[in-house]
Amino acid sequence: MRLAVLGVGLIGGSIGLAARSRAGGGAGGGGDIHVAGYDPDERALRAALELGAIDEAADGVAAAVTGADVAFVAAPVGALHDAVREALAAAGPECVVSDVGSTKRALADAIQDGRFIGGHPLAGAETAGVEHARADLFEGAAWYLTPAASSSAVLLERLRRTIAVLGARPVTIEAAAHDRLMAHLSHLPHVLANVLVSGAVRASEREQHGSWGPVGAGPSFRDATRVAGANTRVWVDIYLSNREALIEALDDAIDRLEGVCAMLAGEDAGALYAWNERARAEREQLAGAAPAPDS
Amino acid sequence: MRLAVLGVGLIGGSIGLAARSRAGGGAGGGGDIHVAGYDPDERALRAALELGAIDEAADGVAAAVTGADVAFVAAPVGALHDAVREALAAAGPECVVSDVGSTKRALADAIQDGRFIGGHPLAGAETAGVEHARADLFEGAAWYLTPAASSSAVLLERLRRTIAVLGARPVTIEAAAHDRLMAHLSHLPHVLANVLVSGAVRASEREQHGSWGPVGAGPSFRDATRVAGANTRVWVDIYLSNREALIEALDDAIDRLEGVCAMLAGEDAGALYAWNERARAEREQLAGAAPAPDS
Repeated sequence: MRLAVLGVGLIGGSIGLAARSRAGGGAGGGGDIHVAGYDPDERALRAALELGAIDEAADGVAAAVTGADVAFVAAPVGALHDAVREALAAAGPECVVSDVGSTKRALADAIQDGRFIGGHPLAGAETAGVEHARADLFEGAAWYLTPAASSSAVLLERLRRTIAVLGARPVTIEAAAHDRLMAHLSHLPHVLANVLVSGAVRASEREQHGSWGPVGAGPSFRDATRVAGANTRVWVDIYLSNREALIEALDDAIDRLEGVCAMLAGEDAGALYAWNERARAEREQLAGAAPAPDS
Repeated sequence: MRLAVLGVGLIGGSIGLAARSRAGGGAGGGGDIHVAGYDPDERALRAALELGAIDEAADGVAAAVTGADVAFVAAPVGALHDAVREALAAAGPECVVSDVGSTKRALADAIQDGRFIGGHPLAGAETAGVEHARADLFEGAAWYLTPAASSSAVLLERLRRTIAVLGARPVTIEAAAHDRLMAHLSHLPHVLANVLVSGAVRASEREQHGSWGPVGAGPSFRDATRVAGANTRVWVDIYLSNREALIEALDDAIDRLEGVCAMLAGEDAGALYAWNERARAEREQLAGAAPAPDS
């Protein structure tokens, strides 16, 4: 089996490490796997080779993809469209091409090719760069796959098996549903973190005469704002590429916040009590829930 | 010096442990400190004595407070008013009475006594009960004090010194300003955590056909919702006792969210970029800022 990894940063490098560490059989083993990597950043490509994330540093997309059974495009969201097209142009008729982008609908709409199946592993993101890549980055993580009606069933099955070799659990979902779900599970928390820090800075300036910032900030505030101002280049692309679903999630959050205002204004202890108990049950439900993997 | 601790849960127990562990002099030592404790829960009171959080288990508020130089009322928010009044009734003219409640204005408005000075240590909260009490719970933490115009300067100074002995940094602030600040730094993050889990559960049911809950929930979601549905009895009291400031903070958050909606609807990449960069700078500002202690 030949794997192509286009873009050898944190995610691409971890795909290579995971595949190579599981090659050669054994429990969950990937059999004989050869990983060809390419990255426009020569330094990253050299580092990936030195770290053992790839067997071979290719000198271009075509060289990496030629003869591959599976190609993962792990380019930044902004460069994804072009990179996927280039990979498909170089890939053979029996090669499945996937990506690892955080939103899936825009790409699914743009790429009409039975060999392309979008993907999104729920891992990483805190750090960047191949030097943080790990063979166990995907261990136990959900890895969303968003096949279209035109996607090849044979290639989907091969992609699912490959992802299982990497240690992740493949979960099939429609591209638009994936994006709406991520609006609530990932994009909205990032927006709220930004909103919290901005409000806190203004409140601190107002209430503490700007002489010192808040302190005070207990663990709930620190946790809720840990991702505030996350990598701007990455996140503005994510917000914009999922703007419709994110606007819907924001409208939903605004409605809920207005509901809390009404309960407070009415001093409705019973309603606040029920609302908080419901949130507790929901948090426990989410914490305990794991997605049924496809198989 | 004689300390009275009324309510020997996590906070009251930690006050006792901190005071007794620092008694006897040495660097930052508290000299000779005697801690009398009282709790209507006899089991908690016995545990506090066994754990060494108090020297003496008093059989009532009056017995604990008689002869005390400093009395800390560490009762639940709902029982705070009555407990403070009872402590003041039993306390001598030279005893300073303080509390550890999360909101300060309601109590400040209700208690007009030069011996009372509200307080709020920014520590604890994750767990409850004297069995989680620690001598170092307040080490380096800010401890807000909200003296009124009528408060005795001599008693404020004694309270400040006592808090320093416990390892905390006393920070004086006006009671209403404290509550507005906490609305942003603590109460709003709790409300947003509830809103996030509710939205995520609905989205999961809708997009995943209710067959399994979200998964996917990366670390940003888990961190942002860790306090969702926090202790309902405690938090409904906090929300209601600070409802005016919390409604203002919620209105401010809603305005900011509507601003994000407008940037997304207009596909305004430049504005989103500037907004996210500002949030990054603000988060760094908050993380680096420590309140100048009063002295």
